Amino acid sequence: MKISHLKNKKIKMIDISDKKLTSRIARAECKIKFSKQSLDKVINNETSKGEILNIARSSGILGAKKTSSLIPLCHNFPINFVNIDFKVDKKKKIICVISEVKTNYSTGVEMEALTACSIASLVIYDMCKSLDKKIIIDDLKLTFKDGGKSGTFKR
Amino acid sequence: MKISHLKNKKIKMIDISDKKLTSRIARAECKIKFSKQSLDKVINNETSKGEILNIARSSGILGAKKTSSLIPLCHNFPINFVNIDFKVDKKKKIICVISEVKTNYSTGVEMEALTACSIASLVIYDMCKSLDKKIIIDDLKLTFKDGGKSGTFKR
Amino acid sequence: MKISHLKNKKIKMIDISDKKLTSRIARAECKIKFSKQSLDKVINNETSKGEILNIARSSGILGAKKTSSLIPLCHNFPINFVNIDFKVDKKKKIICVISEVKTNYSTGVEMEALTACSIASLVIYDMCKSLDKKIIIDDLKLTFKDGGKSGTFKR
Amino acid sequence: MKISHLKNKKIKMIDISDKKLTSRIARAECKIKFSKQSLDKVINNETSKGEILNIARSSGILGAKKTSSLIPLCHNFPINFVNIDFKVDKKKKIICVISEVKTNYSTGVEMEALTACSIASLVIYDMCKSLDKKIIIDDLKLTFKDGGKSGTFKR
Amino acid sequence: MKISHLKNKKIKMIDISDKKLTSRIARAECKIKFSKQSLDKVINNETSKGEILNIARSSGILGAKKTSSLIPLCHNFPINFVNIDFKVDKKKKIICVISEVKTNYSTGVEMEALTACSIASLVIYDMCKSLDKKIIIDDLKLTFKDGGKSGTFKR
Amino acid sequence: MKISHLKNKKIKMIDISDKKLTSRIARAECKIKFSKQSLDKVINNETSKGEILNIARSSGILGAKKTSSLIPLCHNFPINFVNIDFKVDKKKKIICVISEVKTNYSTGVEMEALTACSIASLVIYDMCKSLDKKIIIDDLKLTFKDGGKSGTFKR
Repeated sequence: MKISHLKNKKIKMIDISDKKLTSRIARAECKIKFSKQSLDKVINNETSKGEILNIARSSGILGAKKTSSLIPLCHNFPINFVNIDFKVDKKKKIICVISEVKTNYSTGVEMEALTACSIASLVIYDMCKSLDKKIIIDDLKLTFKDGGKSGTFKR
Repeated sequence: MKISHLKNKKIKMIDISDKKLTSRIARAECKIKFSKQSLDKVINNETSKGEILNIARSSGILGAKKTSSLIPLCHNFPINFVNIDFKVDKKKKIICVISEVKTNYSTGVEMEALTACSIASLVIYDMCKSLDKKIIIDDLKLTFKDGGKSGTFKR
Repeated sequence: MKISHLKNKKIKMIDISDKKLTSRIARAECKIKFSKQSLDKVINNETSKGEILNIARSSGILGAKKTSSLIPLCHNFPINFVNIDFKVDKKKKIICVISEVKTNYSTGVEMEALTACSIASLVIYDMCKSLDKKIIIDDLKLTFKDGGKSGTFKR
Repeated sequence: MKISHLKNKKIKMIDISDKKLTSRIARAECKIKFSKQSLDKVINNETSKGEILNIARSSGILGAKKTSSLIPLCHNFPINFVNIDFKVDKKKKIICVISEVKTNYSTGVEMEALTACSIASLVIYDMCKSLDKKIIIDDLKLTFKDGGKSGTFKR
Repeated sequence: MKISHLKNKKIKMIDISDKKLTSRIARAECKIKFSKQSLDKVINNETSKGEILNIARSSGILGAKKTSSLIPLCHNFPINFVNIDFKVDKKKKIICVISEVKTNYSTGVEMEALTACSIASLVIYDMCKSLDKKIIIDDLKLTFKDGGKSGTFKR
Repeated sequence: MKISHLKNKKIKMIDISDKKLTSRIARAECKIKFSKQSLDKVINNETSKGEILNIARSSGILGAKKTSSLIPLCHNFPINFVNIDFKVDKKKKIICVISEVKTNYSTGVEMEALTACSIASLVIYDMCKSLDKKIIIDDLKLTFKDGGKSGTFKR
């Protein structure tokens, strides 16, 4: 295996001209860790929680569509679907952010799924930072990938 | 304390019209965790490492400047300085990403520092993902903040 | 009928993975209403009128291409054609803005046609606001839509 | 009075180098007109309404910050505050969109206030278009402006 | 003299926190060289020429405002004025593009002036490329710079 | 031949709805001319040179993907490959920037190749401007084009 984005010390976009258009999907997730008190304030008020999570959701979707303008070697192509969901774990004081991205193009959508989680998490951080300056965004990772030559990846 | 970005169930940008222009600084950091083998491939080749880290650095700087277009309630204002640095810990198989952002405006730059780290990390992930599908971006947090009414924060 | 962009209180992008690529077209229009005097100043000078309308036209085309970065749940995809035209009605003191957008993709282009009209109108407003602070942008609506499962819509 | 953005047939940005930094404010509004049935579906479900309006709100705020990249002759400068509010008039089948923008710079924020209303309205249109293809965005206008040499404007 | 943007092999944004806000100006220019026949077609039709040049002008102004998102180490800050002008030299078969940019900030505007010329030229190229595939954009350079510590530069 | 982007004095996007999706390629190049001394400083330090050129490369790739947002009449569509390379000619004191862009769409990629060269050159200019205020970006031109109805162009 080698770093596909470097060749003779030069950064290199991958040429996807000869790759097939296939149905691709990727899922990513990360965790937003609060101090207990602060998460309680967010989730005990159902309306507030809904607002915060929906703004994070819409920002994450916008973020996924901006991936190729944020990450130099990512290709720009149409995205067919972005979903962002949240699971709140009161005990562990965590909001888990889960993204799914689909396309029908000749390159994968891992970076789009990871970018969606990142931006959604930063938006939640921003909206809660007056409550808790010690929020941590943790454990951002690819959890699933399908479509394309390299086959299915499942964590 | 309350969520400053919500008022009567509505999201709300903070009105900074009456805040003073002061010198502000924020620092953030996160960790990119590799499987051992893959990090060795990146760091044993000094040139490759330099290229990857510099592209990540320039993308993180661009990212910091885009914060207000990615996070709905962040203000747009001039940024005087963005620095991004990296520390490689071979034993722990980690690249640590460290950002610093400065402005002389009436709002803080925490979100800019965090966004810089996020984007720089995603770029490293993108350039190394052919080597290692299990990279994790971990422990993104504010480490320092100074300037403005709320005083100095140090983690 | 229901709101296709909300499901269980969560906003939701529509998954277009299984929709067919078909030829799609949409047309929209709106009216810019001047006080009489100010419109006369614009249209009596043929050159000025041409300049103002062409800058509005090029901005509206750029705007149509930015739709998916302005409206969170819109898909990003290639647009094959954007046209923007203007009709001046001296009697009614109105400039009518008419847009047409085409694609060959699996989702419609209504929002692109409406965004094109909005941005073109705002540019005309901006260029004429020193003449007339009471300009109104009125009656923005979809006038025609064809292609896709829902069939032809004509107003 | 003349068109300040045209000089000798050429479009012209206004040179604000010698204008004073002063506190500026602008307010704009527009109306989204539904067919009765469709507006009822939106407003009778309090949660749905909240979600739709908050996504529109955050998009309008993002839109205001993008004004200078959408309208060629607008200046780019820091915005201190954007607020977007909604009034629902069940009888008239209307959602009224009201924006307020503040800065402390040497040019006004009318275009930012108008752009905020436009984008927020287009987002509501997008989220409701599956219910009602005949929505009209109407009566977009400046309602208030203060600060700067030209004095207070009130509609 | 050294490369101010590199330090210990790392790219580096310049920290302008301690620089004074002063009035700054920069001018740049470049030449668009046509084959004779093609330039004649553009300039003999006064209206066409006006349209092409005005679209190039508005795009160059938009381009100047995007400089900090195109060039990683440029600072984002408010621009007070962008002007773009054209001189046609029939004999030499050249359109000369001339830009001027002003700010009142703590860093110069050379890159903004150069970017304005580049984008305006590319737009003219795009609009004329069906007439002439051999257009050359030549001699892009800074011609004047004033304000800031380094004093006046005049070419 | 005529100007395909103007019709009845109005600017006009080309309707590519009926054009075939074919494999397209374009190459462009330009020259960055230094005063001797300054180029020597850049190229004698292998690491510095690598850093500067790789940042220019990644910015040029990002620039190519932004073409349709910079040039009003360019279509937005997926790009399959962007490569940017550099040749240093010590004697002539020149860095030559060479770009190649590929797509499989119904319009050519000349403007993307030219934009990639422009942005990469501006980034090199920016990073070297503290050494040399007299850098010139020269001779930007299309060198090769293939695919589509108009056939192969070679300079």
